[in-house]
Amino acid sequence: MGAVKEPLRALEWVGGADGHLRLLDQTRLPGCVEAIECRDVDSLWDAIRMLRVRGAPAIGVAASYGLVLGLARAVHLEPDAFLERMRELSSRLRACRPTGVNLFACLDRLEAAARQQSGSARRKHAALLDAARALEAENAAACEAMARYGAERILDGWGVLTHCNTGPLATAGAGTALGVLVHAHRQGKRIRVYACETRPLLQGARITTLELRNAGLDVVLLCDSAAAQVMAEGRVQAAVVGADRIAANGDVANKIGTLGLAVNAAARGIPFYVVAPIATIDPALPSGSAIPIEERDPGEVTELCGGRIAPADVPVYNPAFDVTPHGHVTAIVTEAGVLEPPYGAAIRRALQSRTAN
Amino acid sequence: MGAVKEPLRALEWVGGADGHLRLLDQTRLPGCVEAIECRDVDSLWDAIRMLRVRGAPAIGVAASYGLVLGLARAVHLEPDAFLERMRELSSRLRACRPTGVNLFACLDRLEAAARQQSGSARRKHAALLDAARALEAENAAACEAMARYGAERILDGWGVLTHCNTGPLATAGAGTALGVLVHAHRQGKRIRVYACETRPLLQGARITTLELRNAGLDVVLLCDSAAAQVMAEGRVQAAVVGADRIAANGDVANKIGTLGLAVNAAARGIPFYVVAPIATIDPALPSGSAIPIEERDPGEVTELCGGRIAPADVPVYNPAFDVTPHGHVTAIVTEAGVLEPPYGAAIRRALQSRTAN
Repeated sequence: MGAVKEPLRALEWVGGADGHLRLLDQTRLPGCVEAIECRDVDSLWDAIRMLRVRGAPAIGVAASYGLVLGLARAVHLEPDAFLERMRELSSRLRACRPTGVNLFACLDRLEAAARQQSGSARRKHAALLDAARALEAENAAACEAMARYGAERILDGWGVLTHCNTGPLATAGAGTALGVLVHAHRQGKRIRVYACETRPLLQGARITTLELRNAGLDVVLLCDSAAAQVMAEGRVQAAVVGADRIAANGDVANKIGTLGLAVNAAARGIPFYVVAPIATIDPALPSGSAIPIEERDPGEVTELCGGRIAPADVPVYNPAFDVTPHGHVTAIVTEAGVLEPPYGAAIRRALQSRTAN
Repeated sequence: MGAVKEPLRALEWVGGADGHLRLLDQTRLPGCVEAIECRDVDSLWDAIRMLRVRGAPAIGVAASYGLVLGLARAVHLEPDAFLERMRELSSRLRACRPTGVNLFACLDRLEAAARQQSGSARRKHAALLDAARALEAENAAACEAMARYGAERILDGWGVLTHCNTGPLATAGAGTALGVLVHAHRQGKRIRVYACETRPLLQGARITTLELRNAGLDVVLLCDSAAAQVMAEGRVQAAVVGADRIAANGDVANKIGTLGLAVNAAARGIPFYVVAPIATIDPALPSGSAIPIEERDPGEVTELCGGRIAPADVPVYNPAFDVTPHGHVTAIVTEAGVLEPPYGAAIRRALQSRTAN
């Protein structure tokens, strides 16, 4: 397994109020580890849209810094004009990816911070940067807490299935589902992680394997289609995934493929854990059926490594997410503790305790 | 959808007893339609192993012609020496791919034909060619019968999910599962086929879409991981797949990914049909747990279109097949009719009726 390495970081704000955002270009992993410097909103919007930065928590933090970036030249405006410009820019950033809710929650927090900050546009802009930094730090702290809570559910000797990428590169900290697995490993539990490759964009093959090996874990890569057989063979004792949005009843939108895994896990009595910060919960949505599902470009399915794998002009259905009904979710691990069914009540309590803090 | 085209053919025996086998190189589809001429067993063995020819029925017929090819120079031997050479060659061909059973059934038939043919090695060799041609014709006839029986289960207006490739290129005729869908289409039923891309080797994306478009059907390509969401959205009213081996109790080994689809279909009450000739049934195996599962090269998962999609040396688990328990199978469509649960009895009757014919 080799030496344990420092985890790669998804993003880093460089400098002060007139600084810029450095992003690792995750579309080029694992072959190429290269950062891009985002100095304006256009480049950041493109980076989020093209999944150069991805993972609901990381997107939320990146978009927050995007608001700071986009308003750097607006500090000479009157305060009201600054706020008006902020609202326009925030709307634009919200439209970038419709399924994840952290993006909206983060931008809400930033907008509130600027409104509440009295005085000049420059002071409001400084408040935005402070709020973005606070969100980044909060996400890192939330990852630590989720890792601790979640690792209690993982036992020595287990095989654990995971999907997509939910490690440091999907967050501003140690990750969500992968954070749990790395923490369990550091507790001395011998676990083997089965990582689904996660078509179409292969975040599991490209990024999860990289992060887990860097952290010293035993990882086995498989095609998404092999997960059911891996369960049938008794190789895994739990499945652990992240989330992009969780409805008030506990239904979970996550990377396409999650639902199929959850149904198979439920059919075999394999515990299915979702690990996500409280900011992933959208109490305004009564159930998962109201979550908008982003549909992405057919080329993601028909082109691979520059080659074409399907006849020209074949129609493609490429939903980026699916919705797992709460009945298939054993528990939701948050930084406020582990939520268990019935989720409606558990989620209300978690949100209230958070408001109270 | 364009004009309906003649289906591509997987294989063709060219010439007489000293002829050769022409195979379409299916690994190069859809970009390149190119035949390879197999003039010895080595090239045929390689073609089967590399999936240049694939699909359990097509492999059975190809291997049968392979036996003819490999014994063309043995016609001057004494009859007993010819039969000895035949047994060696047959053993070698059987080892090529372990999961599908048609290969074994076809070679059994050829060996019996040569043994039963009295006289010289040359006459035995001619009997082998006759038997191979008979198997090819029987498979074509079986495909026609399966298509007719199966199409009765497909209703106008349905969406139908399928996996891997089960069309003309997987057989010596109209196909198994795809044959059913094309027949339903020709009956005037408006159906939309959702084709899973079928990682790792993408037979669904590369071949199924091509065959269905050539036949004039409405086809939509999706990642394997999107199938559960497609079911959840109510887009499909049935799933139809082929099989590589069926145990005496109705358990079905088929392309990796089938099990996950079957579990999801069962959870939603979506009928799940398996279409396969009787030769796919292995009455010697009491259940699917006894079916050997071929494990293939990690490079199939980690390399795509010449590019590498995972860190070097990541361990990979790449089973080529999985086993769907009979309880998830709504019916098995064969050339002898549609078998329904309890499968043990239905399979015994089908095998008896076949022996009686």
